[in-house]
Amino acid sequence: MAKKDGKKESGKDGKKKRKQRTAPLRELLRVPEGERVDLGSYDASATPAGPADKAAGVAATAALGPRLADLQERLYAASTAGDRRRVLLVLQGMDTSGKGGTVKHVIGLFNPSGCRIRAFKAPTPEELDHPFLWRITKALPHPGEIGIFDRSHYEDVLIARVRELVPRSQLGRRYGQINHFEKSLADDGVTVVKVFLHISYEEQRDRLLERLDNPEKHWKFNVGDIEERGMWPAYQEAYEIALERCSADEAPWYLVPADRKWYRNWAISTLLLEHLEALDPAYPPGDFDVAESRRRLLAT
Amino acid sequence: MAKKDGKKESGKDGKKKRKQRTAPLRELLRVPEGERVDLGSYDASATPAGPADKAAGVAATAALGPRLADLQERLYAASTAGDRRRVLLVLQGMDTSGKGGTVKHVIGLFNPSGCRIRAFKAPTPEELDHPFLWRITKALPHPGEIGIFDRSHYEDVLIARVRELVPRSQLGRRYGQINHFEKSLADDGVTVVKVFLHISYEEQRDRLLERLDNPEKHWKFNVGDIEERGMWPAYQEAYEIALERCSADEAPWYLVPADRKWYRNWAISTLLLEHLEALDPAYPPGDFDVAESRRRLLAT
Repeated sequence: MAKKDGKKESGKDGKKKRKQRTAPLRELLRVPEGERVDLGSYDASATPAGPADKAAGVAATAALGPRLADLQERLYAASTAGDRRRVLLVLQGMDTSGKGGTVKHVIGLFNPSGCRIRAFKAPTPEELDHPFLWRITKALPHPGEIGIFDRSHYEDVLIARVRELVPRSQLGRRYGQINHFEKSLADDGVTVVKVFLHISYEEQRDRLLERLDNPEKHWKFNVGDIEERGMWPAYQEAYEIALERCSADEAPWYLVPADRKWYRNWAISTLLLEHLEALDPAYPPGDFDVAESRRRLLAT
Repeated sequence: MAKKDGKKESGKDGKKKRKQRTAPLRELLRVPEGERVDLGSYDASATPAGPADKAAGVAATAALGPRLADLQERLYAASTAGDRRRVLLVLQGMDTSGKGGTVKHVIGLFNPSGCRIRAFKAPTPEELDHPFLWRITKALPHPGEIGIFDRSHYEDVLIARVRELVPRSQLGRRYGQINHFEKSLADDGVTVVKVFLHISYEEQRDRLLERLDNPEKHWKFNVGDIEERGMWPAYQEAYEIALERCSADEAPWYLVPADRKWYRNWAISTLLLEHLEALDPAYPPGDFDVAESRRRLLAT
């Protein structure tokens, strides 16, 4: 993942570098396993390996749509013949970081019938009566589907850490439980794509102000958002710890600079495309006699 | 609903009539309550009140997208302030009539996060252990959502009738149970939009042949489809009875000619638009002090 230091350098001949990109985006944005993460060192307005500007980014994202939908159909078709593979996109980020916008603009490129979307809110009393992964397990994508989590089990080591909702010892165990859980998902054919939408403190203020200034966006605003914003450093630290401890090979984190919505949409679409292409799902062969079916059908 | 007889007439100056259309499409396509339905009298390739041709139809449908998404967002926003209203689109029709295509092309115009899609297959053993409406109730849209049923409780008076899966007396009671159920949905704020995708016998053969001729579509083909096709008249009769007995004011059936995919997509998009416009959902006012929130936010 390109850090702030490297930004000026890539800016010099950024266009050339973009065209020469050989490493897939998922290598570029991936949080390295076991390394210390310092979110302050990542520029939230950067556009690593991305299109030159907004217009190009919007066009490039739209252009990915048909390929994404095609791969999704193949994945679904394969599941009808017993292939258990599926994709789970996990979206995490501060308020206004664009989780909902990603669902609208990126997941909107797919066939909605093959998407299983779940937004996790504060746990209900019933959910609190169960282990924290209980509600997560119930919302997993079925074979052949693209699952999308708008927030996830990571809330249980994020807000739970910042707000001290559970004893520290219990919190500490959750990282290992998450890694174990995600490994079991990978073993069962789930490609887990975890995206941290990285926005800056200033961008969040602008977006919250925008909500205040537009009466049609008041429903999205909650005075509690300002209080949460007051705990920004604690949240950033909680994210750093989660990104450090839970970026295993089977379920890596991707750090997506998200101040520019067009880059965010392009990057997440591209990450999904790269993962789907790696899966390379194939239409299953028919298990019937085509000529015979054709003959029978023509007789009707 | 324009019948075959009327088709030639409207063909004379169809273009003019289309522009002069004052009655909403939902009045035109609605199956009148309590009237005898003869599917044979409806031309499946007709395009009542529709755009002039495919190109115009595709463009007109795409043009509805932003308005549909806007109304959907308002409906969702209203639900956050306690509005229980929601929409349920029920799609029924013979194999290949375009239920899946409708989800892809029409529901694809909406924000996927507000859509709750459920495709009903043959009931599982667990589902068979419950009353036939049990699995339906579990899949209903929540307040603010657009629910989509690809097949539905109507299968329990369609294939159940044709295949004699239940005693005739039990089957007979189901129509009343469905009407009672749908009325209770309407009472709870659910706008039920039931669409019968009307295709011709010839069009179904062509579409099945197309699946046979394209190896990438073999996964969609089932030899059982040919056997089902053999019972076409019995299915048409079962649909006629369902349309006749279950087209109450609270949950009317719409008969959509579906031989032309572009017309089908346009018509269903338009039906949804008309219903959403009638609901006229409004963004809820904020329940907080905007100036105070603004001041606090700017201090951060």
